[in-house]
Amino acid sequence: MALIETAKVVVLVGGVGGAKLAHGLAQILPPENLTVIVNTGDDFWHYGLKICPDLDTVMYTLSGLVDKVNGWGVGGDTTRLLEALGRYGETPWFRLGDQDVATHLLRTNWIQAGERLTTITGKLNKALGVNCTVLPMTDATVSTMLDTVEQGELEFQPYFVRYRWQPTVKAIRYAGIEAATVSAEACAAILEADVIVIGPSNPWLSIAPILSVPGMRDLLVARDVPRVAVSPIVGGKAIKGPAAKLMAELGYTVSAETVVQVYGNAITGFVYDETDADLRIAGLDAVTFNTVMQSDADRASLARHILEWTLRKT
Amino acid sequence: MALIETAKVVVLVGGVGGAKLAHGLAQILPPENLTVIVNTGDDFWHYGLKICPDLDTVMYTLSGLVDKVNGWGVGGDTTRLLEALGRYGETPWFRLGDQDVATHLLRTNWIQAGERLTTITGKLNKALGVNCTVLPMTDATVSTMLDTVEQGELEFQPYFVRYRWQPTVKAIRYAGIEAATVSAEACAAILEADVIVIGPSNPWLSIAPILSVPGMRDLLVARDVPRVAVSPIVGGKAIKGPAAKLMAELGYTVSAETVVQVYGNAITGFVYDETDADLRIAGLDAVTFNTVMQSDADRASLARHILEWTLRKT
Repeated sequence: MALIETAKVVVLVGGVGGAKLAHGLAQILPPENLTVIVNTGDDFWHYGLKICPDLDTVMYTLSGLVDKVNGWGVGGDTTRLLEALGRYGETPWFRLGDQDVATHLLRTNWIQAGERLTTITGKLNKALGVNCTVLPMTDATVSTMLDTVEQGELEFQPYFVRYRWQPTVKAIRYAGIEAATVSAEACAAILEADVIVIGPSNPWLSIAPILSVPGMRDLLVARDVPRVAVSPIVGGKAIKGPAAKLMAELGYTVSAETVVQVYGNAITGFVYDETDADLRIAGLDAVTFNTVMQSDADRASLARHILEWTLRKT
Repeated sequence: MALIETAKVVVLVGGVGGAKLAHGLAQILPPENLTVIVNTGDDFWHYGLKICPDLDTVMYTLSGLVDKVNGWGVGGDTTRLLEALGRYGETPWFRLGDQDVATHLLRTNWIQAGERLTTITGKLNKALGVNCTVLPMTDATVSTMLDTVEQGELEFQPYFVRYRWQPTVKAIRYAGIEAATVSAEACAAILEADVIVIGPSNPWLSIAPILSVPGMRDLLVARDVPRVAVSPIVGGKAIKGPAAKLMAELGYTVSAETVVQVYGNAITGFVYDETDADLRIAGLDAVTFNTVMQSDADRASLARHILEWTLRKT
């Protein structure tokens, strides 16, 4: 069995759930062996600021700055700027914390100076003491668009935050994806990986945008290493967010099994929750663990279990 | 004698001193009779934000939001965003208050959407309850540049804030001024004015940029109405800022008389402080008042004295 400590791991994630698993992996791996590839389909512009919610959630989680109750944003952040916007008659629907805006401002400034999102993400993370590698899924602009029954087509953030993911989704597309490319950094990390993990993130809203970057899925499938997804569905429900609701709206059975079906040949293994031990997962290696991460120790423990199980035969 | 209450007044101002006089005028005039034309030569971009320090000082002063100790910024503002920038290794030399950034953010967003600074300034002021008209000196971008002995040529804000106006100034230019134009709003206000006042602002750094907008000086000189400047020099010193230091560096005698000389035919009258009652101001109408505005009542009192004196013959 290969040693966990020497395994190079790539994990694909979206926001809160994926960030927790990334944090678990960061607790047990040397930083140079961990690369986190993050969904940027949720990115948007708001008041002239380029906001990358999933990149921020991952960075704040890995740096320990995160608001531990919400799982996103900076702990103890204030909203004086937001209140002052209100004085001008503005009613921002996205929470702009005062400390959080520093991140948006610096990123926006660097983007406008022509820097790549990959470079910017690296600088921001390094400054906050995050020593593993955090990469956006692409340097291109991709926007997850949801075609809804009630509101027509919505960008991700209006769907998710403004309408609190209540509209019924008919279809999803990733606008701009045709022009997106896998960055050299993401490509190199995948080619060097001993294990590829897909975090317990939303399959359509967090992971599918990453897999849809032209070349990404082929790059993953061509790697003859364990590729393991962690189910975001536990006991027929999503731990957080719209994964289960979306699954039903798109015509699937709400179950961890559906996750396997959706990822198809992108994965060779599947981790699902002990709660669902009666499910029969066919066609690939599968195992149950406690996947609900309450504490920092839970995260490290799940990460360790996944890697031990994944590396048991190699 | 014309009634103060029916006189249409235009006042040209820079930052703190001029804003105080504008506030005095706002206290005694119906809002529709007061237009404040503000220097924008100090405007600059910082972290991707378009910042207009003098427009902000005037707006915060007129709305009552101002920090009454500093005379600029929002009273009670916090600096969480600034501190968070520090976490990324940034050391911003310009104070970005959390509430203040809301102003910069909204203005920047609207500028980037193609709106005119005049329109934006109107919207911001109106939202804060400022009912008189506040106008930028032009919609074009003008940058006051200071050629200094110690640091070479500096933009205004680095000179003023970063180097605390300590470098020795050899020459001043207003970059971009050739392409600037007087806005229709400023033109109309000047053409309708019964009195034109130049606030106790820095003649070179606040007022000269306004007078240098092509067409502005001619427009003023052509008006056959009282045009009265208030001296920023009291007892051979500037009440605030580098006016006296600059006066000496540019080779002038540091005195209220120099202000008259510098404004030339732009003014027909001059108000200077009682402290300087022994000065003999020749060649135009001149009067002494207490021009040092400590309280809101001082501001209103000076404004009333100026208008009463100016309108005594009309």
